[in-house]
Order: sequence, then C-alpha cells, then structure tokens
Amino acid sequence: MDKATYDRIEGYMLAMSDAYAHDSLHIYRVLNQALKIAENYAEVDRDILVAACLLHDIGREAQFKDPSLCHAEVGAVLAYDFLRELGWNERDCLHVKNCIRAHRFRNDSVPDTLEAKILFDSDKLDVTGALGIARSFIYMGQMGVPLYSVDENKAVFDGTGETEPDSFFKEYHIKLKKLYDGFYTEEAKRIAEKRRKFIKDFYDELLDEVSF
Amino acid sequence: MDKATYDRIEGYMLAMSDAYAHDSLHIYRVLNQALKIAENYAEVDRDILVAACLLHDIGREAQFKDPSLCHAEVGAVLAYDFLRELGWNERDCLHVKNCIRAHRFRNDSVPDTLEAKILFDSDKLDVTGALGIARSFIYMGQMGVPLYSVDENKAVFDGTGETEPDSFFKEYHIKLKKLYDGFYTEEAKRIAEKRRKFIKDFYDELLDEVSF
Repeated sequence: MDKATYDRIEGYMLAMSDAYAHDSLHIYRVLNQALKIAENYAEVDRDILVAACLLHDIGREAQFKDPSLCHAEVGAVLAYDFLRELGWNERDCLHVKNCIRAHRFRNDSVPDTLEAKILFDSDKLDVTGALGIARSFIYMGQMGVPLYSVDENKAVFDGTGETEPDSFFKEYHIKLKKLYDGFYTEEAKRIAEKRRKFIKDFYDELLDEVSF
Repeated sequence: MDKATYDRIEGYMLAMSDAYAHDSLHIYRVLNQALKIAENYAEVDRDILVAACLLHDIGREAQFKDPSLCHAEVGAVLAYDFLRELGWNERDCLHVKNCIRAHRFRNDSVPDTLEAKILFDSDKLDVTGALGIARSFIYMGQMGVPLYSVDENKAVFDGTGETEPDSFFKEYHIKLKKLYDGFYTEEAKRIAEKRRKFIKDFYDELLDEVSF
C-alpha cells in the first residue's frame, strides 16, 4: 500500500470517532500485531489486511449511539462504501467488508479468509495478558467498579459465585479467562497460551495478596 | 482487645469519611497484614497495633479538603483524642498517636516502635505487587490517564523520559519500582522482594505486548 492511500484510510478512521482522538492506540496495536502474524504467511494480501485493521472499529460510534446496532456490521458497510469511493475494486472492497464483519467475537459471521482470521486474532489478542489486565482495571476505574468485594464476614469474593458483585475476580471468571481459545492462526495460539498463564498468575497473586 | 472496644474504634473509623463507605478494604488489608507480621513478634502490643491500623487514615478527609494538611499528622491527633475519650490511658494514646504520625512515607516522623514499624510496613505493602498494579490502573481510569502514549513515530514511551506524558510506564519508574526498599520488619522485606519481581515482570510484559 502506498503512503498516500494509507494516509487516506487512516485519516478516515481518525475522523470517524471523537474517541479515537484519545485512544487510537488499540487500532495501531491490532494493525501491528496483524502485520507480525502476517509475516508467517507469504500469501497474505497486505493491502486488504491493513485496510481491514485500520477500519475494523469505525462502527463503534454508531453502536455507542444505538446499542441495538452491531459495530462490526455497521463498520463493514461503512468501510466498503469508503473504499469504493477511494477507487478500490468491488472484490477487494467486499473482502475488507467481510473481514470487518467477522472480527467481532459475538456475532454470527465467522472469519473465512486468511486476512479475516488474522484481524480476528489480532483484535482478540489485544484483550489478553497484561493488556487485558490493564484495560480491565482502567475500565473499572472509569465505571466505578471496586477492585473486589467482601461478604459479611469480610471474606473476599473470588469471582466464582454467580451472584457476586462486580469485581476484577468476577471479570476474570466471566470473561478474561475464556478469551484464550478459538484463535485461528498458529502464531496467535502461541501468544495466547503464554498470556493465558500470565493472567492466571496475576489472578492468583492478587487474590493471595488480598486474602488473609 | 475485646469486641466492644474493637467495634467502637471501627465505628469511629467508618464514620470519619464518606469514602470509607465505598472502600474501607484498604484499612482491613493493612490491619490483617499487620496482624500477620505481628505473629513473628511475641512482644507486640496488639491493642496498640489494632487501634493504629484501624485509625491510620482518619485524617484523609481533612487532607482532601485542605491539601496543605498532612493526613498522618491530623489523624494522629484525632486518634489520640478519640482514644482518650474512650478511656485509654495517656501512654497508650500517645503510642497510637506516634504510630499514625509515622506511617506516612513522606513526612519527617520515622517509625521508632515495633508497632509503628509494622503499621508502616503493612500500609506500604498495600501499594506493592499485583495490588499496586491494580490500584494504579483503577486510579488512572478514574483520572483519565491513558495506559501509555507514543511519540510522533508511534514508538511507545517506556516511562524513562522525564518529560513524557503520564502513563503506567512512567508511574512505574517514578513511583512503583521505588517502593520496595525501606521496609523495617523482616517479614515485610521478604514479601516486598517477591512483589518487586512480580511488578517488574508485569512492566516488562506490558511493554513487550504494546511494542512492535
């Protein structure tokens, strides 16, 4: 991809959300991670991959304003239209569209091309390991969720009970520890296994530090 | 200490700050950690230690309202007055007062009794290891500090530069990594060494995860 094209796509991404002004770092991490995974695959279409990574979250603002929308679905259509206008051919635009639609963990689309799989894996790796820990705590701080809670005997809730109040320990059991399966590429699987152990060790250490 | 006395002191502590309604957990961690360290010292006066731990932060609200005040100094005087009113003798009240005055890292008072040293160590341990990491990120979330920043070439600031914007990496170099020296009791030194390695590993892992 030439620099002018990259700049156009990046500029569109940055313009799509006020939030990006404060934190576009996730986008660049996903892009860099994807390019690193792509080093293992000579057959990757790097233009498709770069465009899909840069644009994968442009539907976030629409979903934020209307939570009934899926940002992957919205972003896929927006990206398609934008790239068509940029002069990209129908086939490439559809390819990027499919990558973006399939990047979300929860919707029905499944990544079925190599580029879609790499975007999916890179986006998911961004909530694993130390990054997953850091992003969870920062979000808890923003939302006013306490680090942990105790029962009436001041025993610490370890996150395994279904009716416990929100806490890091609960987030770990409900979400964080479940992120380590379902990767598509071998490189992502390798990174994920290392990070699975890292976050498990963190959970154990924190629980040990607050339990007496 | 009998339960009625404990309840009176705990009740006073809880009444001293609205903030305690949301997070008194720090106080109980410090108390539990102190009692654990105290297991190594038959000569510890547990009543002094329990009172000092429960009351060590009661000056926080005064310092919050007037940052020129030192919460350790204010809390020491408040605790002395409260315990005198509770009927404690002059000597014990002065002892608790001295413990609380000397618990702060930054002021001039230095812990000079075993109970003061145990309170100091327990309070300081509460910002080390996984707890230090978690509390830093939650605070960053509350204050809107980003996880990290990048320079104009999108290279990650690793926290070693003096003019870098605030970030976890900067917090690590300016504050977190420096908390592991200056403990008084052998048990606290042992715990601190383990946690020093833990937080160093976390820093290295997070920096590795966000650097490409």
